[in-house]
Amino acid sequence: MNASTAASFSVMTPADLGLSAASTGRDVRLAARSGGFLGHTSGLAAEYVQVNLAILPTELAGDFLRYCQRNPKPCPLLGVSEPGEWTLPDLAEDLDLRADVPRYRVWRHGELVAEPSDLHGLWRKDLVTFALGCSFSFEHALLADGMRLRHVDEGRNVAMYRTNIPTRAAGVFHGPMVVTMRPLKAADAIRAVQITTRTPEVHGAPVHLGDPALIGIRDIMKPDYGDAVEIRSDELPVFWACGVTPQAAIAAAKPAFCITHAPGHMLVTDRLNQQLGRS
Amino acid sequence: MNASTAASFSVMTPADLGLSAASTGRDVRLAARSGGFLGHTSGLAAEYVQVNLAILPTELAGDFLRYCQRNPKPCPLLGVSEPGEWTLPDLAEDLDLRADVPRYRVWRHGELVAEPSDLHGLWRKDLVTFALGCSFSFEHALLADGMRLRHVDEGRNVAMYRTNIPTRAAGVFHGPMVVTMRPLKAADAIRAVQITTRTPEVHGAPVHLGDPALIGIRDIMKPDYGDAVEIRSDELPVFWACGVTPQAAIAAAKPAFCITHAPGHMLVTDRLNQQLGRS
Repeated sequence: MNASTAASFSVMTPADLGLSAASTGRDVRLAARSGGFLGHTSGLAAEYVQVNLAILPTELAGDFLRYCQRNPKPCPLLGVSEPGEWTLPDLAEDLDLRADVPRYRVWRHGELVAEPSDLHGLWRKDLVTFALGCSFSFEHALLADGMRLRHVDEGRNVAMYRTNIPTRAAGVFHGPMVVTMRPLKAADAIRAVQITTRTPEVHGAPVHLGDPALIGIRDIMKPDYGDAVEIRSDELPVFWACGVTPQAAIAAAKPAFCITHAPGHMLVTDRLNQQLGRS
Repeated sequence: MNASTAASFSVMTPADLGLSAASTGRDVRLAARSGGFLGHTSGLAAEYVQVNLAILPTELAGDFLRYCQRNPKPCPLLGVSEPGEWTLPDLAEDLDLRADVPRYRVWRHGELVAEPSDLHGLWRKDLVTFALGCSFSFEHALLADGMRLRHVDEGRNVAMYRTNIPTRAAGVFHGPMVVTMRPLKAADAIRAVQITTRTPEVHGAPVHLGDPALIGIRDIMKPDYGDAVEIRSDELPVFWACGVTPQAAIAAAKPAFCITHAPGHMLVTDRLNQQLGRS
Protein backbone atom coordinates (compact mmCIF):
# COMPACT_ATOMS: atom_id res chain seq x y z
CA MET A 1 0.00 0.00 0.00
CA ASN A 2 1.42 3.32 -1.05
CA ALA A 3 0.69 6.35 1.07
CA SER A 4 0.66 8.77 -1.82
CA THR A 5 -1.97 6.65 -3.58
CA ALA A 6 -4.20 7.16 -0.57
CA ALA A 7 -3.48 10.88 -0.70
CA SER A 8 -4.63 11.06 -4.29
CA PHE A 9 -8.17 10.21 -3.13
CA SER A 10 -8.28 13.65 -1.57
CA VAL A 11 -10.30 16.18 -3.53
CA MET A 12 -8.67 19.23 -1.97
CA THR A 13 -5.06 20.03 -2.86
CA PRO A 14 -2.82 21.89 -0.41
CA ALA A 15 -3.13 24.96 -2.65
CA ASP A 16 -6.93 24.71 -2.56
CA LEU A 17 -6.67 24.85 1.22
CA GLY A 18 -4.20 27.74 1.21
CA LEU A 19 -1.32 25.53 2.41
CA SER A 20 2.22 26.09 1.18
CA ALA A 21 5.84 26.13 2.27
CA ALA A 22 5.06 29.46 3.96
CA SER A 23 2.27 28.04 6.16
CA THR A 24 2.67 27.64 9.91
CA GLY A 25 2.49 24.32 11.71
CA ARG A 26 -0.86 25.41 13.15
CA ASP A 27 -2.19 26.14 9.64
CA VAL A 28 -1.50 22.56 8.59
CA ARG A 29 -2.88 21.09 11.83
CA LEU A 30 -6.14 23.03 11.53
CA ALA A 31 -6.52 22.01 7.86
CA ALA A 32 -6.05 18.37 8.87
CA ARG A 33 -8.33 18.75 11.90
CA SER A 34 -11.16 20.10 9.73
CA GLY A 35 -10.93 16.96 7.59
CA GLY A 36 -10.22 18.96 4.46
CA PHE A 37 -6.53 18.12 4.17
CA LEU A 38 -5.63 14.45 3.70
CA GLY A 39 -2.35 14.79 1.77
CA HIS A 40 1.33 14.32 2.57
CA THR A 41 3.11 17.21 4.25
CA SER A 42 6.39 17.21 2.29
CA GLY A 43 7.23 20.80 1.39
CA LEU A 44 4.50 22.35 3.56
CA ALA A 45 5.17 24.71 6.50
CA ALA A 46 8.87 24.48 5.68
CA GLU A 47 9.98 26.47 8.73
CA TYR A 48 8.35 24.06 11.18
CA VAL A 49 9.45 20.75 12.66
CA GLN A 50 7.36 17.81 11.42
CA VAL A 51 7.22 14.60 13.45
CA ASN A 52 6.57 10.89 12.98
CA LEU A 53 4.09 9.38 15.43
CA ALA A 54 3.75 6.05 17.19
CA ILE A 55 0.69 5.78 19.46
CA LEU A 56 0.87 2.69 21.67
CA PRO A 57 -0.92 1.18 24.68
CA THR A 58 0.86 1.94 27.97
CA GLU A 59 1.89 -1.71 28.37
CA LEU A 60 4.16 -1.36 25.29
CA ALA A 61 5.46 2.12 26.08
CA GLY A 62 8.49 0.94 28.10
CA ASP A 63 9.65 -1.38 25.33
CA PHE A 64 9.17 1.35 22.75
CA LEU A 65 11.10 3.92 24.78
CA ARG A 66 14.02 1.53 25.02
CA TYR A 67 13.73 0.80 21.28
CA CYS A 68 14.06 4.53 20.55
CA GLN A 69 16.98 4.91 22.95
CA ARG A 70 18.84 2.04 21.24
CA ASN A 71 18.09 3.28 17.71
CA PRO A 72 18.52 7.05 17.85
CA LYS A 73 19.16 7.51 14.13
CA PRO A 74 15.79 6.17 12.91
CA CYS A 75 13.95 6.99 16.18
CA PRO A 76 15.08 10.38 17.56
CA LEU A 77 12.56 11.01 20.32
CA LEU A 78 11.32 14.62 20.44
CA GLY A 79 8.29 14.15 22.69
CA VAL A 80 6.23 11.65 24.70
CA SER A 81 2.67 12.30 25.88
CA GLU A 82 1.10 11.54 29.23
CA PRO A 83 -1.02 8.35 28.98
CA GLY A 84 -4.43 9.06 27.44
CA GLU A 85 -3.65 12.71 26.64
CA TRP A 86 -3.84 14.02 23.09
CA THR A 87 -1.44 16.89 23.64
CA LEU A 88 2.34 17.35 23.43
CA PRO A 89 2.88 20.72 25.15
CA ASP A 90 6.62 20.78 24.38
CA LEU A 91 5.95 20.59 20.64
CA ALA A 92 2.75 22.52 19.96
CA GLU A 93 -0.06 24.57 21.45
CA ASP A 94 -3.60 24.05 20.13
CA LEU A 95 -2.84 20.41 19.33
CA ASP A 96 -5.25 17.48 19.08
CA LEU A 97 -3.37 14.24 18.40
CA ARG A 98 -6.70 12.62 17.47
CA ALA A 99 -7.25 14.83 14.43
CA ASP A 100 -4.26 16.98 13.48
CA VAL A 101 -2.45 14.42 11.30
CA PRO A 102 -3.75 14.30 7.69
CA ARG A 103 -3.82 10.51 7.64
CA TYR A 104 -3.23 7.88 10.31
CA ARG A 105 -2.58 4.17 10.13
CA VAL A 106 -4.34 1.73 12.48
CA TRP A 107 -2.56 -1.55 13.14
CA ARG A 108 -4.07 -4.73 14.68
CA HIS A 109 -1.77 -7.69 15.34
CA GLY A 110 0.83 -6.21 13.00
CA GLU A 111 -1.58 -5.77 10.10
CA LEU A 112 -2.48 -2.38 8.67
CA VAL A 113 -6.28 -2.36 8.94
CA ALA A 114 -7.30 1.26 8.25
CA GLU A 115 -6.02 4.71 7.22
CA PRO A 116 -8.43 7.12 8.90
CA SER A 117 -8.05 10.89 8.99
CA ASP A 118 -9.48 11.08 12.51
CA LEU A 119 -9.07 9.00 15.67
CA HIS A 120 -12.03 10.12 17.77
CA GLY A 121 -13.72 6.72 17.58
CA LEU A 122 -10.50 4.87 18.33
CA TRP A 123 -8.96 6.86 21.17
CA ARG A 124 -8.25 5.04 24.45
CA LYS A 125 -7.22 6.20 27.91
CA ASP A 126 -4.13 4.00 27.89
CA LEU A 127 -2.59 5.39 24.68
CA VAL A 128 0.86 7.01 24.84
CA THR A 129 2.06 9.09 21.88
CA PHE A 130 5.69 9.15 20.78
CA ALA A 131 6.86 11.95 18.46
CA LEU A 132 10.02 11.25 16.43
CA GLY A 133 12.08 13.68 14.38
CA CYS A 134 11.57 13.71 10.60
CA SER A 135 13.90 14.25 7.66
CA PHE A 136 11.67 17.06 6.38
CA SER A 137 13.39 19.20 9.05
CA PHE A 138 16.87 18.78 7.60
CA GLU A 139 15.51 19.33 4.10
CA HIS A 140 14.86 22.87 5.28
CA ALA A 141 18.59 23.25 6.02
CA LEU A 142 19.61 21.66 2.71
CA LEU A 143 17.30 23.95 0.73
CA ALA A 144 18.51 26.97 2.72
CA ASP A 145 22.07 26.04 1.66
CA GLY A 146 21.02 26.31 -1.98
CA MET A 147 20.53 22.62 -2.75
CA ARG A 148 17.68 21.35 -4.92
CA LEU A 149 15.67 18.32 -3.79
CA ARG A 150 13.90 16.58 -6.63
CA HIS A 151 10.86 15.30 -4.71
CA VAL A 152 10.28 18.81 -3.37
CA ASP A 153 10.65 20.35 -6.85
CA GLU A 154 8.17 17.79 -8.19
CA GLY A 155 5.70 18.07 -5.28
CA ARG A 156 6.09 14.39 -4.42
CA ASN A 157 6.38 12.52 -1.15
CA VAL A 158 9.95 11.42 -0.37
CA ALA A 159 10.93 7.85 -1.41
CA MET A 160 11.25 5.41 1.54
CA TYR A 161 12.66 1.88 1.57
CA ARG A 162 12.94 -1.05 3.95
CA THR A 163 16.62 -2.09 4.16
CA ASN A 164 18.61 -5.08 5.39
CA ILE A 165 20.16 -2.89 8.13
CA PRO A 166 18.88 -4.38 11.41
CA THR A 167 17.75 -2.20 14.28
CA ARG A 168 18.69 -3.08 17.86
CA ALA A 169 15.80 -4.97 19.48
CA ALA A 170 14.08 -3.82 22.70
CA GLY A 171 11.34 -6.00 24.22
CA VAL A 172 8.90 -6.91 21.46
CA PHE A 173 10.26 -4.34 19.01
CA HIS A 174 12.77 -5.29 16.33
CA GLY A 175 13.03 -5.18 12.56
CA PRO A 176 14.77 -3.54 9.61
CA MET A 177 15.70 0.13 9.35
CA VAL A 178 13.57 2.16 6.96
CA VAL A 179 15.40 4.93 5.07
CA THR A 180 14.54 7.95 2.96
CA MET A 181 16.47 8.56 -0.28
CA ARG A 182 17.41 11.78 -2.05
CA PRO A 183 19.46 11.81 -5.28
CA LEU A 184 22.31 14.33 -5.05
CA LYS A 185 25.45 15.21 -6.97
CA ALA A 186 28.61 14.16 -5.11
CA ALA A 187 29.53 17.66 -3.93
CA ASP A 188 25.98 18.15 -2.61
CA ALA A 189 26.08 14.71 -0.95
CA ILE A 190 29.25 15.77 0.89
CA ARG A 191 27.63 19.07 1.95
CA ALA A 192 24.52 17.16 3.00
CA VAL A 193 26.62 14.96 5.31
CA GLN A 194 28.12 18.09 6.86
CA ILE A 195 24.76 19.83 7.28
CA THR A 196 22.75 16.87 8.59
CA THR A 197 25.49 15.85 11.03
CA ARG A 198 24.56 19.01 12.96
CA THR A 199 21.01 17.81 13.73
CA PRO A 200 21.02 14.36 15.32
CA GLU A 201 17.48 15.03 16.59
CA VAL A 202 16.23 14.71 12.99
CA HIS A 203 18.21 11.59 11.96
CA GLY A 204 21.67 13.18 11.69
CA ALA A 205 24.08 12.12 8.93
CA PRO A 206 23.16 9.65 6.18
CA VAL A 207 23.47 5.93 6.89
CA HIS A 208 24.42 5.02 3.31
CA LEU A 209 25.14 6.43 -0.11
CA GLY A 210 25.76 4.84 -3.49
CA ASP A 211 24.80 1.28 -4.44
CA PRO A 212 21.27 0.57 -3.04
CA ALA A 213 21.83 -3.22 -3.24
CA LEU A 214 24.43 -2.97 -0.44
CA ILE A 215 21.62 -2.17 2.02
CA GLY A 216 19.17 -4.66 0.54
CA ILE A 217 17.19 -2.38 -1.79
CA ARG A 218 16.46 -4.39 -4.95
CA ASP A 219 14.75 -1.77 -7.11
CA ILE A 220 15.38 1.90 -6.32
CA MET A 221 12.46 2.87 -8.59
CA LYS A 222 10.04 0.88 -6.38
CA PRO A 223 10.05 2.48 -2.93
CA ASP A 224 8.19 0.70 -0.14
CA TYR A 225 6.56 3.99 0.90
CA GLY A 226 6.25 7.38 -0.80
CA ASP A 227 7.06 8.20 -4.42
CA ALA A 228 9.94 7.17 -6.70
CA VAL A 229 12.16 9.90 -8.17
CA GLU A 230 14.64 9.78 -11.04
CA ILE A 231 18.35 9.35 -10.22
CA ARG A 232 20.48 10.94 -12.94
CA SER A 233 23.84 9.62 -14.15
CA ASP A 234 25.78 12.34 -12.29
CA GLU A 235 23.96 11.71 -9.00
CA LEU A 236 24.28 9.33 -6.06
CA PRO A 237 21.31 8.09 -4.04
CA VAL A 238 21.85 9.29 -0.45
CA PHE A 239 20.02 7.44 2.34
CA TRP A 240 19.00 8.68 5.78
CA ALA A 241 17.42 6.73 8.64
CA CYS A 242 13.65 7.32 8.66
CA GLY A 243 10.98 7.67 11.35
CA VAL A 244 8.83 5.13 9.51
CA THR A 245 11.17 2.48 10.98
CA PRO A 246 8.80 1.93 13.95
CA GLN A 247 6.10 0.86 11.49
CA ALA A 248 8.35 -2.00 10.37
CA ALA A 249 8.95 -2.81 14.06
CA ILE A 250 5.20 -2.76 14.71
CA ALA A 251 4.64 -5.11 11.75
CA ALA A 252 7.22 -7.43 13.35
CA ALA A 253 6.04 -7.09 16.98
CA LYS A 254 2.36 -7.49 16.03
CA PRO A 255 0.86 -5.66 19.02
CA ALA A 256 -2.92 -6.18 19.37
CA PHE A 257 -3.52 -2.48 18.70
CA CYS A 258 -1.58 0.65 17.85
CA ILE A 259 -1.68 3.73 15.63
CA THR A 260 0.91 5.58 13.57
CA HIS A 261 0.86 8.40 11.03
CA ALA A 262 0.76 7.37 7.35
CA PRO A 263 4.27 7.71 5.85
CA GLY A 264 4.88 11.28 4.70
CA HIS A 265 1.67 12.50 6.38
CA MET A 266 3.27 14.09 9.42
CA LEU A 267 2.21 16.01 12.46
CA VAL A 268 3.48 19.57 11.98
CA THR A 269 4.51 21.21 15.24
CA ASP A 270 5.12 24.80 16.39
CA ARG A 271 8.86 24.22 16.81
CA LEU A 272 11.12 25.90 14.28
CA ASN A 273 13.60 23.87 12.25
CA GLN A 274 16.17 26.61 12.72
CA GLN A 275 16.13 25.92 16.45
CA LEU A 276 17.35 22.36 15.94
CA GLY A 277 21.03 21.46 16.23
CA ARG A 278 21.59 23.37 19.46
CA SER A 279 21.56 20.57 22.00
CA MET B 1 57.03 9.91 -13.98
CA ASN B 2 55.86 8.04 -10.93
CA ALA B 3 57.29 9.12 -7.58
CA SER B 4 57.10 5.67 -6.03
CA THR B 5 59.15 4.28 -8.90
CA ALA B 6 61.86 6.69 -7.91
CA ALA B 7 61.52 5.58 -4.30
CA SER B 8 62.12 1.97 -5.31
CA PHE B 9 65.67 2.94 -6.36
CA SER B 10 66.42 3.45 -2.69
CA VAL B 11 68.41 0.62 -1.15
CA MET B 12 67.39 1.41 2.42
CA THR B 13 63.80 0.73 3.47
CA PRO B 14 62.17 2.76 6.26
CA ALA B 15 62.47 -0.32 8.50
CA ASP B 16 66.21 -0.57 7.71
CA LEU B 17 66.51 3.01 8.94
CA GLY B 18 64.43 2.41 12.05
CA LEU B 19 61.54 4.53 10.72
CA SER B 20 57.93 3.57 11.45
CA ALA B 21 54.53 5.01 12.35
CA ALA B 22 55.94 5.52 15.85
CA SER B 23 58.85 7.72 14.70
CA THR B 24 58.97 11.44 15.42
CA GLY B 25 59.03 14.12 12.77
CA ARG B 26 62.65 14.80 13.66
CA ASP B 27 63.54 11.10 13.19
CA VAL B 28 62.29 11.25 9.60
CA ARG B 29 63.96 14.61 8.93
CA LEU B 30 67.33 13.39 10.18
CA ALA B 31 67.04 10.17 8.12
CA ALA B 32 66.32 12.28 5.02
CA ARG B 33 69.06 14.79 5.89
CA SER B 34 71.66 12.02 6.14
CA GLY B 35 70.76 10.95 2.60
CA GLY B 36 69.83 7.45 3.73
CA PHE B 37 66.07 7.84 3.40
CA LEU B 38 64.69 8.57 -0.07
CA GLY B 39 61.22 7.00 0.19
CA HIS B 40 57.68 8.29 0.53
CA THR B 41 56.50 9.23 4.01
CA SER B 42 52.98 7.72 3.97
CA GLY B 43 52.43 5.89 7.26
CA LEU B 44 55.62 7.20 8.91
CA ALA B 45 55.66 9.37 12.05
CA ALA B 46 51.89 9.04 12.17
CA GLU B 47 51.44 11.48 15.07
CA TYR B 48 53.15 14.34 13.24
CA VAL B 49 51.92 16.85 10.67
CA GLN B 50 53.46 16.32 7.22
CA VAL B 51 53.53 19.18 4.73
CA ASN B 52 53.69 19.75 0.97
CA LEU B 53 56.33 22.27 -0.15
CA ALA B 54 56.55 24.89 -2.85
CA ILE B 55 59.86 26.80 -2.93
CA LEU B 56 59.65 29.84 -5.20
CA PRO B 57 61.70 32.96 -6.06
CA THR B 58 60.53 36.05 -4.15
CA GLU B 59 59.16 37.62 -7.34
CA LEU B 60 56.50 34.83 -7.54
CA ALA B 61 55.73 34.70 -3.82
CA GLY B 62 52.93 37.28 -3.93
CA ASP B 63 51.11 35.47 -6.72
CA PHE B 64 51.50 32.16 -4.93
CA LEU B 65 50.21 33.53 -1.62
CA ARG B 66 47.09 34.79 -3.39
CA TYR B 67 46.75 31.44 -5.17
CA CYS B 68 46.74 29.67 -1.79
CA GLN B 69 44.26 32.14 -0.33
CA ARG B 70 41.87 31.58 -3.23
CA ASN B 71 42.22 27.79 -3.18
CA PRO B 72 42.23 26.83 0.50
CA LYS B 73 41.10 23.24 -0.02
CA PRO B 74 44.08 22.12 -2.12
CA CYS B 75 46.47 24.78 -0.72
CA PRO B 76 45.95 25.19 3.06
CA LEU B 77 48.89 27.34 4.06
CA LEU B 78 50.55 26.24 7.32
CA GLY B 79 53.80 28.19 7.05
CA VAL B 80 55.84 30.62 4.94
CA SER B 81 59.60 31.15 5.33
CA GLU B 82 61.54 34.41 5.32
CA PRO B 83 63.24 34.90 1.91
CA GLY B 84 66.42 32.83 1.65
CA GLU B 85 65.97 31.08 5.00
CA TRP B 86 65.76 27.29 5.22
CA THR B 87 63.81 27.23 8.44
CA LEU B 88 60.12 27.31 9.40
CA PRO B 89 60.23 28.00 13.16
CA ASP B 90 56.44 27.64 13.56
CA LEU B 91 56.54 24.09 12.23
CA ALA B 92 59.79 22.52 13.37
CA GLU B 93 63.00 23.03 15.32
CA ASP B 94 66.23 21.54 13.92
CA LEU B 95 64.95 21.95 10.37
CA ASP B 96 66.94 22.31 7.15
CA LEU B 97 64.64 22.84 4.19
CA ARG B 98 67.59 22.08 1.88
CA ALA B 99 67.94 18.48 3.04
CA ASP B 100 65.09 17.26 5.26
CA VAL B 101 62.71 16.13 2.50
CA PRO B 102 63.44 12.61 1.18
CA ARG B 103 63.06 13.67 -2.44
CA TYR B 104 62.60 17.07 -4.10
CA ARG B 105 61.51 18.06 -7.57
CA VAL B 106 63.32 20.82 -9.50
CA TRP B 107 61.29 22.63 -12.15
CA ARG B 108 62.65 24.87 -14.95
CA HIS B 109 60.16 26.64 -17.23
CA GLY B 110 57.41 24.25 -16.09
CA GLU B 111 59.40 21.11 -16.85
CA LEU B 112 60.44 18.63 -14.18
CA VAL B 113 64.22 18.46 -14.64
CA ALA B 114 65.53 16.62 -11.56
CA GLU B 115 64.50 14.76 -8.39
CA PRO B 116 67.40 15.37 -6.00
CA SER B 117 67.47 14.39 -2.33
CA ASP B 118 69.43 17.51 -1.38
CA LEU B 119 69.25 21.19 -2.41
CA HIS B 120 72.59 22.52 -1.21
CA GLY B 121 73.85 23.16 -4.73
CA LEU B 122 70.58 24.79 -5.79
CA TRP B 123 69.70 27.07 -2.87
CA ARG B 124 69.30 30.79 -3.56
CA LYS B 125 68.93 33.84 -1.35
CA ASP B 126 65.64 34.79 -2.97
CA LEU B 127 63.79 31.50 -2.33
CA VAL B 128 60.62 31.56 -0.23
CA THR B 129 59.25 28.26 1.08
CA PHE B 130 55.52 27.59 1.38
CA ALA B 131 54.34 24.69 3.56
CA LEU B 132 50.85 23.32 2.81
CA GLY B 133 48.79 20.85 4.87
CA CYS B 134 48.73 17.22 3.74
CA SER B 135 46.08 14.52 3.79
CA PHE B 136 48.39 12.22 5.76
CA SER B 137 47.33 14.29 8.78
CA PHE B 138 43.65 13.44 8.50
CA GLU B 139 44.53 9.80 7.84
CA HIS B 140 45.72 9.80 11.44
CA ALA B 141 42.22 10.80 12.55
CA LEU B 142 40.55 8.23 10.27
CA LEU B 143 42.78 5.42 11.54
CA ALA B 144 42.20 6.56 15.14
CA ASP B 145 38.45 6.20 14.49
CA GLY B 146 38.97 2.54 13.56
CA MET B 147 38.93 2.88 9.78
CA ARG B 148 41.27 0.89 7.55
CA LEU B 149 43.09 2.63 4.69
CA ARG B 150 44.24 0.24 1.99
CA HIS B 151 47.35 2.13 0.87
CA VAL B 152 48.51 2.30 4.50
CA ASP B 153 47.79 -1.43 5.02
CA GLU B 154 49.76 -2.20 1.85
CA GLY B 155 52.64 0.21 2.57
CA ARG B 156 52.00 2.17 -0.63
CA ASN B 157 51.98 5.86 -1.44
CA VAL B 158 48.46 7.30 -1.74
CA ALA B 159 46.96 7.50 -5.27
CA MET B 160 46.80 11.06 -6.71
CA TYR B 161 45.02 12.29 -9.84
CA ARG B 162 44.77 15.45 -11.92
CA THR B 163 41.08 16.35 -12.29
CA ASN B 164 38.97 18.62 -14.47
CA ILE B 165 38.08 20.74 -11.40
CA PRO B 166 39.65 24.16 -12.08
CA THR B 167 41.43 26.11 -9.38
CA ARG B 168 40.95 29.87 -9.07
CA ALA B 169 43.80 31.65 -10.84
CA ALA B 170 46.10 34.20 -9.13
CA GLY B 171 48.75 35.97 -11.15
CA VAL B 172 50.66 33.38 -13.16
CA PHE B 173 49.25 30.44 -11.19
CA HIS B 174 46.28 28.45 -12.48
CA GLY B 175 45.49 24.86 -13.39
CA PRO B 176 43.51 21.78 -12.40
CA MET B 177 42.99 20.54 -8.86
CA VAL B 178 44.95 17.42 -7.91
CA VAL B 179 43.18 15.00 -5.56
CA THR B 180 44.05 12.01 -3.40
CA MET B 181 41.76 8.96 -3.45
CA ARG B 182 40.93 6.41 -0.77
CA PRO B 183 38.44 3.56 -1.33
CA LEU B 184 35.94 3.34 1.53
CA LYS B 185 32.67 1.58 2.30
CA ALA B 186 29.73 4.01 2.27
CA ALA B 187 29.37 4.18 6.06
CA ASP B 188 33.10 4.91 6.38
CA ALA B 189 32.87 7.51 3.59
CA ILE B 190 30.15 9.29 5.58
CA ARG B 191 32.24 9.14 8.77
CA ALA B 192 35.26 10.36 6.80
CA VAL B 193 33.29 13.44 5.67
CA GLN B 194 32.39 14.14 9.29
CA ILE B 195 35.94 13.66 10.57
CA THR B 196 37.80 15.56 7.84
CA THR B 197 35.36 18.48 7.95
CA ARG B 198 36.89 19.28 11.35
CA THR B 199 40.37 19.99 9.92
CA PRO B 200 40.20 22.52 7.09
CA GLU B 201 43.95 23.14 7.55
CA VAL B 202 44.63 19.69 6.04
CA HIS B 203 42.17 19.84 3.10
CA GLY B 204 38.90 19.50 5.05
CA ALA B 205 36.01 17.45 3.63
CA PRO B 206 36.24 15.47 0.38
CA VAL B 207 35.62 17.29 -2.90
CA HIS B 208 34.07 14.27 -4.64
CA LEU B 209 33.02 10.67 -4.16
CA GLY B 210 31.74 8.01 -6.52
CA ASP B 211 32.17 8.07 -10.30
CA PRO B 212 35.75 9.24 -11.10
CA ALA B 213 34.75 10.22 -14.66
CA LEU B 214 32.63 13.08 -13.26
CA ILE B 215 35.83 14.88 -12.21
CA GLY B 216 37.75 13.96 -15.36
CA ILE B 217 39.61 10.86 -14.15
CA ARG B 218 39.65 8.38 -17.03
CA ASP B 219 41.30 5.38 -15.43
CA ILE B 220 41.21 5.10 -11.65
CA MET B 221 43.85 2.34 -11.78
CA LYS B 222 46.33 4.76 -13.40
CA PRO B 223 47.00 7.57 -10.91
CA ASP B 224 49.04 10.54 -12.10
CA TYR B 225 51.16 10.37 -8.93
CA GLY B 226 51.59 7.70 -6.23
CA ASP B 227 50.36 4.11 -6.36
CA ALA B 228 47.09 2.57 -7.54
CA VAL B 229 44.98 0.59 -5.03
CA GLU B 230 42.12 -1.82 -5.58
CA ILE B 231 38.54 -0.51 -5.22
CA ARG B 232 36.21 -3.33 -4.15
CA SER B 233 32.60 -3.73 -5.26
CA ASP B 234 31.25 -2.58 -1.87
CA GLU B 235 33.45 0.54 -1.81
CA LEU B 236 33.32 4.08 -3.20
CA PRO B 237 36.39 6.04 -4.25
CA VAL B 238 36.51 9.15 -2.02
CA PHE B 239 38.52 12.16 -3.27
CA TRP B 240 40.17 14.93 -1.28
CA ALA B 241 41.92 18.06 -2.55
CA CYS B 242 45.69 17.51 -2.55
CA GLY B 243 48.73 19.66 -1.85
CA VAL B 244 50.31 18.45 -5.10
CA THR B 245 47.93 20.88 -6.85
CA PRO B 246 50.65 23.62 -6.90
CA GLN B 247 52.82 21.30 -9.01
CA ALA B 248 50.11 21.33 -11.70
CA ALA B 249 49.99 25.13 -11.36
CA ILE B 250 53.78 25.34 -11.69
CA ALA B 251 53.62 23.17 -14.81
CA ALA B 252 51.06 25.64 -16.20
CA ALA B 253 52.80 28.87 -15.03
CA LYS B 254 56.24 27.70 -16.23
CA PRO B 255 58.36 29.83 -13.87
CA ALA B 256 62.05 29.88 -14.83
CA PHE B 257 62.98 28.09 -11.61
CA CYS B 258 61.29 26.54 -8.59
CA ILE B 259 61.40 23.52 -6.30
CA THR B 260 58.74 21.29 -4.74
CA HIS B 261 58.73 18.04 -2.78
CA ALA B 262 58.17 14.85 -4.81
CA PRO B 263 54.53 13.70 -4.37
CA GLY B 264 54.17 11.62 -1.22
CA HIS B 265 57.71 12.50 -0.07
CA MET B 266 56.76 15.07 2.52
CA LEU B 267 58.48 17.28 5.04
CA VAL B 268 57.55 15.89 8.46
CA THR B 269 57.20 18.60 11.09
CA ASP B 270 57.19 18.72 14.90
CA ARG B 271 53.51 19.70 15.04
CA LEU B 272 51.09 17.04 16.26
CA ASN B 273 48.12 15.97 14.13
CA GLN B 274 45.97 15.89 17.25
CA GLN B 275 46.48 19.63 17.65
CA LEU B 276 44.81 20.34 14.31
CA GLY B 277 41.12 21.28 14.08
CA ARG B 278 41.27 23.83 16.88
CA SER B 279 41.38 27.05 14.93
